[in-house]
Amino acid sequence: MAIKYSKRMKGVKASEIRELLKLTIRPEVISFAGGLPAPELFPIEEMKRVSLKILEESGQQALQYSPTEGFPPLRQKIAKRMEKLGVGTYSDNILITNGSQQGLDFSGKIFLDAEDVVIVESPSYLGAINAFRAYQCKFVEIPTDDNGMIMEELEKALNTTKNVKMIYVIPDFQNPSGRTWSLERRTKLIELANKFDLPIVEDNPYGELRFEGERIPSIKSLDREGRVIFLGTFSKTFCPGLRIGWVCASDEILNKYILVKQGADLQSNSMSQRELNEFLESYDLDRHIEKIKRLYKERRDLMINAIKEYFPSEVKYTYPQGGLFTWAVLPEHINARELMVKALERNVAFVPGGAFFPNGGNENTMRINYSNMPGDRIVEGIKVLGEVIKESLSK
Amino acid sequence: MAIKYSKRMKGVKASEIRELLKLTIRPEVISFAGGLPAPELFPIEEMKRVSLKILEESGQQALQYSPTEGFPPLRQKIAKRMEKLGVGTYSDNILITNGSQQGLDFSGKIFLDAEDVVIVESPSYLGAINAFRAYQCKFVEIPTDDNGMIMEELEKALNTTKNVKMIYVIPDFQNPSGRTWSLERRTKLIELANKFDLPIVEDNPYGELRFEGERIPSIKSLDREGRVIFLGTFSKTFCPGLRIGWVCASDEILNKYILVKQGADLQSNSMSQRELNEFLESYDLDRHIEKIKRLYKERRDLMINAIKEYFPSEVKYTYPQGGLFTWAVLPEHINARELMVKALERNVAFVPGGAFFPNGGNENTMRINYSNMPGDRIVEGIKVLGEVIKESLSK
Repeated sequence: MAIKYSKRMKGVKASEIRELLKLTIRPEVISFAGGLPAPELFPIEEMKRVSLKILEESGQQALQYSPTEGFPPLRQKIAKRMEKLGVGTYSDNILITNGSQQGLDFSGKIFLDAEDVVIVESPSYLGAINAFRAYQCKFVEIPTDDNGMIMEELEKALNTTKNVKMIYVIPDFQNPSGRTWSLERRTKLIELANKFDLPIVEDNPYGELRFEGERIPSIKSLDREGRVIFLGTFSKTFCPGLRIGWVCASDEILNKYILVKQGADLQSNSMSQRELNEFLESYDLDRHIEKIKRLYKERRDLMINAIKEYFPSEVKYTYPQGGLFTWAVLPEHINARELMVKALERNVAFVPGGAFFPNGGNENTMRINYSNMPGDRIVEGIKVLGEVIKESLSK
Repeated sequence: MAIKYSKRMKGVKASEIRELLKLTIRPEVISFAGGLPAPELFPIEEMKRVSLKILEESGQQALQYSPTEGFPPLRQKIAKRMEKLGVGTYSDNILITNGSQQGLDFSGKIFLDAEDVVIVESPSYLGAINAFRAYQCKFVEIPTDDNGMIMEELEKALNTTKNVKMIYVIPDFQNPSGRTWSLERRTKLIELANKFDLPIVEDNPYGELRFEGERIPSIKSLDREGRVIFLGTFSKTFCPGLRIGWVCASDEILNKYILVKQGADLQSNSMSQRELNEFLESYDLDRHIEKIKRLYKERRDLMINAIKEYFPSEVKYTYPQGGLFTWAVLPEHINARELMVKALERNVAFVPGGAFFPNGGNENTMRINYSNMPGDRIVEGIKVLGEVIKESLSK
């Protein structure tokens, strides 16, 4: 048998993170690899009450088919929450998706033909790169610094690149770098997108997890022309297992996402949408988020302090003001994929950073997650990582 | 602003059924339009117990990220259930999807480039047509009769059509026609697929809902070369709101589906997978399915008898031995879309059949669902439909 697959399947590869995660589920592994929330904070008791209530009061509807767009009261609540991000919007501009990953896939489907170009930060989120790649696009990576994407470089790329169809950014506590864009860069991004008439996909899973510093307005809040597609999710503020995210976009664009959702899976889980809606009605999500932030800040502090103590001074790393990740850059001759093999032998895991650069290179980088491990294991794991790095340096 | 969408978006249209369903949610409407299961049979009490147990015993895991492939014990149980369909398989050959609709979307993504041809039954399932269309394919419709797709016509098409990449069929209680393929046709289909080296997507949401007659082996069970991709779902045997379906395929092909699932939404709902698994462990799904079949048979009988009594003799209709639908063919000069407008004025809904023919025509057909309405409303609704048809005939 020689079944022929579509051309796009040549570009579809296993996500290195998902494959790695399989190796890291052994309980003895100290894993900084995933982007997993701290499960000890999941509101399990609240979920029990909420599930019972939904089944009691509207069980038939919760288990039945429901509208593609999502459960109307939940869409309303999300629209309301968007106001806090400075985005005035309506529930009609919200589509419920299976986590923001589905919004990424849909963005590729809606905007990209084969050979089209997506502009991304360098580095960018691996899951987005994989989702877009299925639409046979090319990537132009724009260099970044501690203030986000470098706008002079973006402008140069826009002036010299054909068939750019979309700009994809993660402006808050970026995955993988942990860095956050300055307001100035955000304003300039909108200006350039307006000039070149391009849609921006703003992926914002971590924006609500700021531990310190001033909140910076979302890019969507600066958008006067309806060209920003905002992807949100409850995976990091509530829990990822229910797979509830959303797309917020202007009427015409959102309508495309709704059509694509119909063909993709008809609708998201009816029961989980009602459970989340009931949770938002009965409990205070913002208070819950405060708890998450306190814990993650503590873990970030432990990790950064351990890095200061145990990593050799040649290693550079970012200081995230929120979110789940820090990012380390090793001396150029060290290959983080090889480092990962050695670290795993000692039961410590992280994600080699090369995978976050769609056009390759940068194998001397690593993404390190601090949200999922208890404090003592963070310190222990960083100590081991420091030793593994030192061994590689001395060779 | 003139944002450019991908070329595929030209073919992506709103599903007529989903749009219609919006008009039919008024409680006074007798709706034969959707493909909705009877919600009064949803196992709500059991779900309460199951949800509490999952949250109690494995709440952290149920709300956390989980493997792309699906919850391992659930995959095992599905593999086991496949044996009843004559398919010997392993849990490694099962991927959990968001209903079988997601399996349809993935099939298009994996097999279809622009201008490629999908072979479908005429008529075929609207949701599949919409899903495939997003991959810019063409459709070749093969005529059908009460025994399924006509094999001489298929062979002719395979001999004369370029770039055929996939054959898509719904052999059991087909949506929309309610008809079931004979064993002879199934055997011949496999023979032709082997000869032309093509994958077959066997969509089987209704196979377990047979009210009468002998079960006919699934096409997958006749496959010796691993070329049949079987799409299953719990939407019709348990409930659709949890969005749990599956793909069963040979190793190499299933691996493509898993890769595509990673990019599409990482994984299906962790909590719902565990709930369903717990339900399958604690309760007897087959006994539950017996209850569903008893009710649907009763409703089918009521509907077919009412059609006999109230539809004019010019109308032909199918006699489904299982599943959710019957299919009516009106005299050629009657347009079922216009009929639908008149029927809705009298608070009765169905789906005009034209939408099930990807290449158009056949506007004198209608899909009529009997699973979702109580008996008295079935009789009343068919009576009204009969009157509306008679009015159109007499013009």
